[in-house]
Amino acid sequence: MSEKLKPAARVTGNRQDVWSIINEAAAASPKQPIVNMGQGFFGYNPPDFVLDAAKQALDRVECNQYSPTKGRPRLKKALSDAYSPFWGRTLDPETEITITTGANEGMLSAFMAFIEPGDEVIVFEPFFDQYVSNIEMPGGKIVYVPMHPPKEGAVKTLSAGEWTIDFDELERAITPKTKMLVLNTRDNPVGKVFSREELQRIADLCLKHQIIILSDEVYDRLFYVPFTRIATLSPEVEQITLTVGSAGKNFYATGWRVGWLLGPPHLIQYVSAAHPRICYSSVSPLQEACAIGFEQADAHSFWTTSIASMTPQNLAIPYSIPQGGYFVMVNLSAVQIPADYPFPPHVAHRPRDFKLAWFLIQELGVAAIPPSEFYTDANSHIVEDYLRFAVCKPDEVLEDAKERLRGLRKFLKKE
Amino acid sequence: MSEKLKPAARVTGNRQDVWSIINEAAAASPKQPIVNMGQGFFGYNPPDFVLDAAKQALDRVECNQYSPTKGRPRLKKALSDAYSPFWGRTLDPETEITITTGANEGMLSAFMAFIEPGDEVIVFEPFFDQYVSNIEMPGGKIVYVPMHPPKEGAVKTLSAGEWTIDFDELERAITPKTKMLVLNTRDNPVGKVFSREELQRIADLCLKHQIIILSDEVYDRLFYVPFTRIATLSPEVEQITLTVGSAGKNFYATGWRVGWLLGPPHLIQYVSAAHPRICYSSVSPLQEACAIGFEQADAHSFWTTSIASMTPQNLAIPYSIPQGGYFVMVNLSAVQIPADYPFPPHVAHRPRDFKLAWFLIQELGVAAIPPSEFYTDANSHIVEDYLRFAVCKPDEVLEDAKERLRGLRKFLKKE
Ligand SMILES: Cc1ncc(COP(=O)(O)O)c(C=O)c1O
Ligand SMILES: Cc1ncc(COP(=O)(O)O)c(C=O)c1O
Repeated sequence: MSEKLKPAARVTGNRQDVWSIINEAAAASPKQPIVNMGQGFFGYNPPDFVLDAAKQALDRVECNQYSPTKGRPRLKKALSDAYSPFWGRTLDPETEITITTGANEGMLSAFMAFIEPGDEVIVFEPFFDQYVSNIEMPGGKIVYVPMHPPKEGAVKTLSAGEWTIDFDELERAITPKTKMLVLNTRDNPVGKVFSREELQRIADLCLKHQIIILSDEVYDRLFYVPFTRIATLSPEVEQITLTVGSAGKNFYATGWRVGWLLGPPHLIQYVSAAHPRICYSSVSPLQEACAIGFEQADAHSFWTTSIASMTPQNLAIPYSIPQGGYFVMVNLSAVQIPADYPFPPHVAHRPRDFKLAWFLIQELGVAAIPPSEFYTDANSHIVEDYLRFAVCKPDEVLEDAKERLRGLRKFLKKE
Repeated sequence: MSEKLKPAARVTGNRQDVWSIINEAAAASPKQPIVNMGQGFFGYNPPDFVLDAAKQALDRVECNQYSPTKGRPRLKKALSDAYSPFWGRTLDPETEITITTGANEGMLSAFMAFIEPGDEVIVFEPFFDQYVSNIEMPGGKIVYVPMHPPKEGAVKTLSAGEWTIDFDELERAITPKTKMLVLNTRDNPVGKVFSREELQRIADLCLKHQIIILSDEVYDRLFYVPFTRIATLSPEVEQITLTVGSAGKNFYATGWRVGWLLGPPHLIQYVSAAHPRICYSSVSPLQEACAIGFEQADAHSFWTTSIASMTPQNLAIPYSIPQGGYFVMVNLSAVQIPADYPFPPHVAHRPRDFKLAWFLIQELGVAAIPPSEFYTDANSHIVEDYLRFAVCKPDEVLEDAKERLRGLRKFLKKE
């Protein structure tokens, strides 16, 4: 092939991403059907009132054609109604809300709106891996700040809240080029919800250095402890904060690709300017369905039912209880993989958690995600004994998983 | 606002785009309800067999969750079945087809895959305006090559095929930095279909200089003259060509945001790598519906009915008959706008076609698009007497438009 046809550097990372490694291994496992607790998609359908709304939208001409690039008026209004109570004031649907193609494209829109090549973005480790490519697309440079896991993680079932930030380390990471900070409260994969005090300290630093906070709150309806939205700390913090949401996570419809950003007009206007340059406008009939979903959620007690159904069950091995979201981090330091176990090269060269994931897929037919993918190489050792399980699956699946995980017993280290 | 919060240059173009100018003017026109022939969305629904497929997909758990980033297997298979006959060989669904969030995000994925900052992309004028921001996102530089309109356009109803390329001008535009060329056959707004001979000359130049051809064929099912797909000219041309398609255009569902790229594995693999970095994966239930749409289209004689229903009617003023697509370019040089007509500043500073569009919206309640938006400033005079009308609207709407356009008579120049 001619040298002139070569791809751009931004798409030529040579390491296979974790999602395809695990999905391909799961498909090839001898233990079919597999219990797939890897990727965070739901094992059940969106609620009927949302599905019905989608079907009705499909019968309306204007719901099948291009929506305004900033989103359908009805969805922006429904979001204003749903979120204004948390903000304690009415959010303007026209200037403070913009609709995106999932939270993922929403975050890309935010980075495209504010990052010039060479600008720095602070990301806490572990990070949701999509942040990396989203920040790199506009030429941003990522500065990682680690979250430190609790020391007793190996032996006890601990709360995810005990993962901590070293604030000196955070302040040292700030430079004159720091433009944004990504905050993932109810983060993926740890499931930690930052305390109000932690958020205030982060916000103070961002105010002092005028850093835009991009708060990824896609799990905002799935929380098991009280939770503070950083934008609501004070009017000053609100002025520098963009909050990201996802209908996919809210309504069990990850394949619908509807998300949004909330924020002050002077930030939102540029996100709204970036979004049409990326994918023009977002999917119309499903935007309409999500609008109706928000309008009717309370009448169906949907949010409370949702939390109750997702609260993670006992898994019989030490794990980190999430404070939000639907991922649990399970510590597998006690599992002893036979020394001569055959790993393919793309797994053999990765940290122990990749080998654990591979081993579980082969031996038990259970797929989970190795979380070192969410760390830089230097820090990947921090989680090399953990695997991330998505628990947003039907009860039968969770029962099956528990049963299969008992098969680990014969591989446990003798104390 | 702090200097540190300022947006990136890529989102701060200070000129309002044509779509928002026209949509806002239409909403504020005294002649409500307006006949909106501006944007190219359809005035009717997708066909029932496609709508039914969408509703059924909504009942299936896996159709509501994330799809593989490269697209749903069923849609890739259906596209292979639908397009292989045109290619004269079987397209491999796994390596030669990738699904995107509309054609627009598909083209962005292609530019993100191959353009490094400073690389040049050749675009014919007039161009579909989205190309500009899509190319600029990865830092590409656009090199424009004009298409020349027929001289008699003002007085006769001519075929769009008579707009021509000067091939010397094209070759002079190529430099060592030229990485891609965008071809929009059945282009928007002119509706020209390049002849086989024209395509061969373009392809020869691209082969000689090893330039990737991005062929935007979103109107590929709406053609009124024989049409050649550039990828099918020869195996050599195929090796450097990416072909873009849009389910939105094919199935009258512009709001569904499903598109695709076809091409050789060594190009498609990088488009597939860029796409998940932009919006992860594309909307699942509507991908499934489009798969079923392709599977069943022939049984419903859908493509032939579609062409018959879209063939543009006589508009009673000179216009350029499209050879494909659903836009007609109408020449309004005979219309005399009163000298003291009040235009708002954002229209007063634009070429005559913007004033014509504004005038028609105010006086007749008919919205159309000023095509100088699709030209660089230097060449915008070429089309300043034209307006672009989208004719993908129900018969009543088209009749109403014709009736209203008769109101232009009193503004015609006396010969
Ligand atoms: C922390 C986090 N942010 C964003 C997303 C993406 O959300 P969406 O599917 O709406 O793009 C995910 C999905 O897994 C996530 O876990
Ligand atoms: C020439 C051309 N290319 C691409 C597109 C975008 O297609 P999609 O809606 O699938 O993104 C359009 C839509 O108007 C178009 O006219």
